Order: sequence, then C-alpha cells, then structure tokens
Amino acid sequence: MADTEPTQTPPPNPAVEGAEASKGPSKSELKKRTKEAEKAKKAAEKAAKQAELEAQKAAAEVDFATEFYGKLPLNQSQSRPRRSRIQIASLTPELDGQPVLLRARVQTSRMQGSKMVFFVLRQRIDSVQALLTVSEGKVSKQMAKWAGGLAMESIVLVEGTVKKAPEIIKSATVGNVEIHISQIHLISGIEGILPFSVEDASRPELEAEESEEAQFKRVLLDTRLNNRVVDLRTTTNQAVFKLQHAIGNFFRDYLDGQGFTEIHSPKLQGAATESGASVFKVSYFKGNAYLAQSPQLAKQMAIAADFERVYEIGPVFRAEDSNTHRHMTEFIGLDLEMTIEEHYHEVLELLDGLFLHMFRSLRQKYSKEIETVRKQFPADEFKWREGPEGTLKLSFKEAVDLLVEDGVPREALDDIDTPSEKRLGRIVREKYETDYFIIDKFPMGLRPFYTMPDPEDPTLSNSYDFFMRGEEILSGAQRVHDATMLAENMRAKGIDPATMSFYLDAFRMGCPPHGGGGIGLERVLMLFLKLNNIRRASLFPRDPKRLEP
Amino acid sequence: MADTEPTQTPPPNPAVEGAEASKGPSKSELKKRTKEAEKAKKAAEKAAKQAELEAQKAAAEVDFATEFYGKLPLNQSQSRPRRSRIQIASLTPELDGQPVLLRARVQTSRMQGSKMVFFVLRQRIDSVQALLTVSEGKVSKQMAKWAGGLAMESIVLVEGTVKKAPEIIKSATVGNVEIHISQIHLISGIEGILPFSVEDASRPELEAEESEEAQFKRVLLDTRLNNRVVDLRTTTNQAVFKLQHAIGNFFRDYLDGQGFTEIHSPKLQGAATESGASVFKVSYFKGNAYLAQSPQLAKQMAIAADFERVYEIGPVFRAEDSNTHRHMTEFIGLDLEMTIEEHYHEVLELLDGLFLHMFRSLRQKYSKEIETVRKQFPADEFKWREGPEGTLKLSFKEAVDLLVEDGVPREALDDIDTPSEKRLGRIVREKYETDYFIIDKFPMGLRPFYTMPDPEDPTLSNSYDFFMRGEEILSGAQRVHDATMLAENMRAKGIDPATMSFYLDAFRMGCPPHGGGGIGLERVLMLFLKLNNIRRASLFPRDPKRLEP
Repeated sequence: MADTEPTQTPPPNPAVEGAEASKGPSKSELKKRTKEAEKAKKAAEKAAKQAELEAQKAAAEVDFATEFYGKLPLNQSQSRPRRSRIQIASLTPELDGQPVLLRARVQTSRMQGSKMVFFVLRQRIDSVQALLTVSEGKVSKQMAKWAGGLAMESIVLVEGTVKKAPEIIKSATVGNVEIHISQIHLISGIEGILPFSVEDASRPELEAEESEEAQFKRVLLDTRLNNRVVDLRTTTNQAVFKLQHAIGNFFRDYLDGQGFTEIHSPKLQGAATESGASVFKVSYFKGNAYLAQSPQLAKQMAIAADFERVYEIGPVFRAEDSNTHRHMTEFIGLDLEMTIEEHYHEVLELLDGLFLHMFRSLRQKYSKEIETVRKQFPADEFKWREGPEGTLKLSFKEAVDLLVEDGVPREALDDIDTPSEKRLGRIVREKYETDYFIIDKFPMGLRPFYTMPDPEDPTLSNSYDFFMRGEEILSGAQRVHDATMLAENMRAKGIDPATMSFYLDAFRMGCPPHGGGGIGLERVLMLFLKLNNIRRASLFPRDPKRLEP
Repeated sequence: MADTEPTQTPPPNPAVEGAEASKGPSKSELKKRTKEAEKAKKAAEKAAKQAELEAQKAAAEVDFATEFYGKLPLNQSQSRPRRSRIQIASLTPELDGQPVLLRARVQTSRMQGSKMVFFVLRQRIDSVQALLTVSEGKVSKQMAKWAGGLAMESIVLVEGTVKKAPEIIKSATVGNVEIHISQIHLISGIEGILPFSVEDASRPELEAEESEEAQFKRVLLDTRLNNRVVDLRTTTNQAVFKLQHAIGNFFRDYLDGQGFTEIHSPKLQGAATESGASVFKVSYFKGNAYLAQSPQLAKQMAIAADFERVYEIGPVFRAEDSNTHRHMTEFIGLDLEMTIEEHYHEVLELLDGLFLHMFRSLRQKYSKEIETVRKQFPADEFKWREGPEGTLKLSFKEAVDLLVEDGVPREALDDIDTPSEKRLGRIVREKYETDYFIIDKFPMGLRPFYTMPDPEDPTLSNSYDFFMRGEEILSGAQRVHDATMLAENMRAKGIDPATMSFYLDAFRMGCPPHGGGGIGLERVLMLFLKLNNIRRASLFPRDPKRLEP
C-alpha cells in the first residue's frame, strides 16, 4: 500500500519512579530519607507532569492528524455536511485569499527540504499547483512528511486558500493561481506500481527524430491500451472523449431538428445477413445467433414501418481479422435512413448539412478541447469549404480522373483502394483546399445488393462515400425498396432470398423510396483530430487481438 | 401484384375501305363508279377522320393516365422539381380551397357507385379522409376504377384541394377537413396479402368479456411480432416509439445538464464477468468472447479514469431462458455512474431528479402521443408525488413491514419476489397515491459483490431499487472502490479475482467513491404507458424464442 497511514507516535511511558520504603531507619537517616523521598516525589511529580504534558502533546498530534490529514473512511456515506467542492477550471486570481475545498488527483508531489511540499493537482483537463508549508499549530512536520510521501495518482481532498501566483506556473493548466493547503486527506491511494506516469503519457507524439530520452519516455500504444484506465486520465484523452460525446450530441441534435426518430435495433440476429463472412456467431440457447454488422436491415424495416426518418447510435460488429490503424471489431455506428420524396440527393445533402453542423459546432464550442489534444497530437487544422460553392462533390469517374492525372494507372482503378484514397485526399487538399469531400455515383459492382442502380446507367448506382483527410467516414446510398428487384439483386450476388425473408417481407408490404448512410463515430473523431490510430478514439478498443480491458 | 397498372385502351383500327379498280367500264358506268369512288373516298376520309379523332382521344387518355395517375418510376431520382409535400397533421379548415401535395399510406379505400372513391390516408399518427370524384376532363372513370382498386397499405402521392369537412369525420384523426383528389399516383404497392389490417391492429385491447367478433378481429401479439413492420404502422406504435425516443432524450438532456459524459463501452468482453450463467458466448476468431450483460465494469473503470460522471445508452444482453412479460434477451440499458463527494444519497437524489424530469417532460410535451396509446391500451394515468414531501422512499425493512401488515408471511420476505413487488405497488398506491417510489438499504446478501456495505450495519448495503407500478425499473448502489475490499468480496461470492484482474487493476490505480444505477428503457416505456408486455416497447424484440424479424 503506497498510501501510508499516518504513523501514530505512541504516548510516551510516564517515567514515574516509586519511592521504596525501608525498615528501621535512624532519625537522621529518616530525615535524610524523607528529604530524599520528597525530592523523589517532586522528581516523580515533575516527571509525571512532564509525561502528562508529553502525552497531551502526543494526543494533540493524533487529533491533528485526524483533523488535518490522514485517510478518509473508506465507505464515505456516513455524514453529509454538504460542503461544496470547487473545480480547478474555475479558479482565478480574483479568488485570491478565498478558502476552497477540492477533490483532485496528485499528478506530482515534490518535497523541498523538510518544510515544503509542492503538488500538481489534476481534475480531468485542468491542473493547478498546490503548496503545503510547515507552520506552528497549523501544519506539522509530520503532516508535511506524510503528504510528501503520497503516491502519484492518489486522490486527495484538499482544503486551502487561493493565492495569486507570483509568476505563471507552467507545469499547470491554471497557471495564475496556486493553492496554499491547510488540510489534506487521502480519499483513495494506489496499490502497486503505476505502469507509467500520466505526465509521461501526456508527452507530445513526435513524428520522427526524437531524442533518445524522448523515445525512452514515450509510452507505446499497446502499453497504454493494456493500462487504459491510467492512459485515459491524460488531459488529451479527457478532451478526446469529451469530443466524442460532443459529436454524438451534434449528430442527434441535428437529426432531431430534422424530424428524425431515434431507434434501437437488435444486435442479435437469427441469420448471418449482408455478408456472412464478417459476422460473429453467438451461442443462443440451443441454437445460434449472429451479431449485426450494421443496423442496415432494421433501419430499412423502420422506413417500411412508416418511421419516415430514423437514426441509431449503437455498436456494430465486424468479424474481420485485420489489424489496421482504422479497423476495430466493434465500433459505434452513427446510422440514419430517410424517405426520399423526389431524388436521392435529398439524403446526400442532409448528410452534408449534418457534417457541416458537426464541424462548425466542434470548432465553435470545443476549441479548448481541440487545443488540448493538439498539444499531444500536432496536426494541420481540419479544413472544409464554407463558401457559396459548398462542399466539393466529385463523381466516381471524376475522382478516378484526378488520380490518373496524378499518375495512377487507370487499370488499377476499378475500385479506389486505401492508398489511392489517401492520395486522392492529398490531391483534393492541394487543388480544392478542403479535407472534406464527397464521391457520388459509385459503380454498381462495388456496392451491396440493396443499392439502387442509376436510372440512366445501370452500371452506376445512386450511392456515395464521404471522406475526411483522405479516409472514408461514411458510406451510403439510395436503397432498393421494391421486393421483386431486391430478390433479383440478391440472387445476382449469390444470396438466397429465402434466408432473408423477414427483410424481403418488409418491402412486400409496401415501402417508400429511401436512402441513408452509416458513419463511424471513432473514425470521425480520429480524423478530425488526426489521432492516427482509431484505437485512440475508442474508450476500450476491440480488435482481433484485444478483448480487454 | 395488387397495384394494377392502368390498362391502356389500344387505338381503334381505322376502318379505311380501299376502292377497287376494274377493267373496261362504260361511260355511265365510269360516272357511276366515279361517284361511288368519290362516295367511298368521302366515307374513307370520314372514317379516317373518325379514326384519327378516336386515336387522339385514346392518346389523350394515355397521357391523362400518365399525368394524373399510374405508378411512379421505381427509381425516383430522375428529376427534382422540389415540390413541397404537406403533413396531414398540419391540415386545418383554414386551408379550405388550398391545393396540396402529400405522400401517404392508403389505410382504406372504398368505391361508392362507379364515380366516387373514399380513402382514409395515413401518415404516422395522423389520418385524413380523401375523396376522388369522376368529373369531365379532370377525373376519368378509368382513373377512379384504378384508384378504387388500390390495395390497403399502398403508398400514394396525392394532389388535391383541402376542403372543410361538412361534418366531423370520425374515421380520421384530422376530422375537420378532407382532401378532394385531382391526381393520384402509386409510389409503392403491396405484394401478396397483408397479414392483418392496420385498422384491426389498432383496436383497443380489452381486458376481458370481448364480443366474439372483437375476439376474432383481435390481432395476437405473436402475429404482430411476426409481422412487426405492419404492426409498427399503427398510430399506437408510432406514438410508442416517439415516446421511446423522447425518454432517451430526456435522460440524456438531464444528465448533460449535470456534467455527465456519454460513453460507449464494448459489448464484446474477454471473460464472462458479473455472473457467468447469464452471459452469451461468442466465437471470436480462434477463441471466445462474451456479450456484456451490462456496462457496469466499463462505467466504473471510466470513473477510475477520472471521467467523474458518465452515462451510456446501449444494448445489454441477458442469456436467461425466461419468457415472462418483462424479460428480453436484449434490451436498452440507460446506465449511469458518478463520483460521490460525501454520501451515496447524492446518487439516489440525482436519479430521482432524473425520473421526475422524465415523467414531467413526457406529460408536458407528449400528451398527444400518450393519448394516442391510451386509446388502444386504456390505463390509469401514471401517478407520482409532486408535493414538498418529495418521492416516497422506503427502507427495505419498511417495505417488508408494509407487506407483512398486508398479510404476507415474514418468513417469505428474505427477498421481495415479483408477486410481492406487485402487491407492494398496490399497497403503496393506495396508501401514498403514487406509482413511483424508491426502496433503499437492501440486505447485502441480495446484492452483487461490487456493492458497498452500510457503514453501520454490514448486513445491509448502500443500495436501492426504483419502482414504477410495482415493478423494478432501476437497480443501483454505491460501489466498492477499494481493490482489497473488492477482491475479498469476490472471493466471498465464489469469483476468482484473477479472472477479473483488468477490472481490479482499475481500482488499484486509485478510484474515487462512486455509485450509479441501470434503467431498462423498455421497462420505463412499458410501465409508464401500461403496455403489459415489454415486447411492445421494443422495436424488434428478442427473447429465447425470437430472433426475427
């Protein structure tokens, strides 16, 4: 246990010397003895008094320890004085002289001599310096020693006074004040050894040419993920997951404003739909079930059930044995589906409006978090077009032409593979000054069976992908809403319509024209912030080799 | 195909009689013949003219069919005139005489004679009567016949004029107007036979004593769920799922306002945690994974990772082979976890505030939807206490005493089983006039290993359940945040701490005191509306016997 209990000084044993009586003494002897006895008595009294004083002092020390420092009861929940705690973020020099109470992590503690302890205290993305100084009747040496010995990452409850900082403290995010501690209690300590310090885990990720020391201190991704709970405490990660929450909220708010209904579709399915190869099999009582690799079928059935416009935020599962920087076996899908009145570009334009809303809101409302992340992950600011010309839309053919112009052999471009995507992203950024664009009209052969063909050229389809920094973040299309056509397309792709009869039935019962798309939440987060690996955008990522923590 | 294409009248064969030439005729004969020829020519000309007229007329009929009725192109997405569609809900008598365009389902269609067709057109929870009348040059007999033959549940695009209804039309939700149709097109038809009509599926659920006819028309739950896409189209279900969306939003908004962060935790886990018995096993590449039966561990780890206050909305999986009215194998958990400053009642009170916010917001903002559901599912209005005395809070002991007073033998009340819960609900409603209450301080023996014991009486725990209409809808507690105590508790419950080391590690690295709870979304919805079966509150429910649709 690194959280040391205050060592109690045992009350000193009072050195009381009892006077010993002897038999048949002489008078002078008696006198002498009496004198000696008196002397002894006095000495004893003195000793007793001394002992009492020392005992009192020791007792006072114990009270002091209980009152001013030490470990709080494990259970908490014993009384409720309703004392309010302050957030580090709200500390300002205007509070100079004000008493405050706060709960925080000990990011670092450092003794200076035997009379001063410097702390950096941390709450989420904020930190402040705090100072404990030995002073008569207020802060004992013992208390300072105990506090200086607190392990990094201990959680403490601190009472103190806000002081303007004599100069800006660079080691803390709130650098213009410090806290002068009068009391400090341990709420929760550390057991064992930290896998790495939060300070080391917060160092900037440098692209190359690091110093040997920097390389040594660098915490590798795998080490971070194995100890994700500590890794998540960096200000960077606190910001990343505030931004993840924000993206979800912007998605929802925008769609709620457009008349969408949020749905929750089952992840357990009776058949391996869409593409059986990448589906996880589940033991389901005496039979099997399969994990949904998207809410595609369910959201389309919701359209057939008159929901008009639906979205879902939920896990999707992909049993693909690939360990790239952008694939996980479980991720959060932001999915939507909507009825079309006249043309599938209604969907494409709504999706574009949605992305612009997310980008704008992130920049407007979360600049502090974005800045926090950038300190560790330096990146060019994410660019999109705001002018009257709107978002760049290329047809698949135009995208291919751009790549061919850039030197990619046309024969290699039946599909645009991942390296070509990245290359296209660079070409587009240079030519159109945007990190965000749309490719429309993919060849029918590249899309799933439920994609609606182009009415004029059946080799093309009414489908689109959206890109951020040269990586796909959304795939979508107008869907086939006619049961006969759907069954034909299934057969053409080698799927037996009988295995998906419940899905086909939905269309047999009448379904309006519709389209939609699916966004990977973690991809948007990774690419907006340029985190370079999707695992950094997932709380507890899952890949073929990782199921814990 | 029930959606009949308009039959084209073939253009009539023009009856042209050719004049036949003969050899060597006399002059008079010639004259006669010339006259005859002229006559024939005239007749031919007349016939040709007649034929042309008829052809013109037929052609006009075809144009008329294309213009005024018929099936729209399957693909849509060919042109984009951007004509705006109206919502039935926004139709009012003030719009009398206004032209409108709308897309809707044909709920019913009925021919009256050969010249009039009455429709009830439906959009989600609204419906309106529409009327097609044969009139020269506007609505042909053919068009009326075609329209009258449209199958129920066809989707049509209708152009017409709003008219004040001569009297309130009871068969529609918007009863004070009707639409006089000038054009009608089929967007999507029906293939095969409807399993039941949406009208039948919308009839009130009567408790008992139904007429034989009512019983016959009643659509059984299993039939509904087998054909969920049609069942979901009832105005009742449209309202139910709008309310489901609303509850999720109220949950989120309230917690966002209280400084919570939304998280997404993985559903795939490396070990069968919490209680292995009710966990689904997944084939995971060359090994196995397990489906999370709650985000309990992940949300606690998020607290250890300094997230302070977190919530999650996501699927939870229970491999329990029970087919009750309130269990599903997959449902949506509304889960939250928060740091405690002084006392676990901080959590209990926040949860209470959350429920009151949900109840109040539902009543204030969704009275139309609640009324819609009540037409099919009659229920006493859901009651809660709004006075200064606040929500009723009973200790487990007090709840047991109430049941004993009511005649339940005390020996049977080590736990409060489902029938006793229901009974308690009735007792509380009678005595305290509320359908919503809290039971606090459950015996430690009834709660999982991660529950914090009561500091004064270790046979009790800092845990609570929330109830609606006598059924549990939330279970929560203060959690053990100390790794040593947690490992001891695991051993005491027969769990090997080594199997959950990643979880224990989170607490070894320092974790603040915290507590939380989990709410079943579908249960709240079912109990607020009194739907009597949880499957009605789930879009596509899953139970041991149902994995489709």
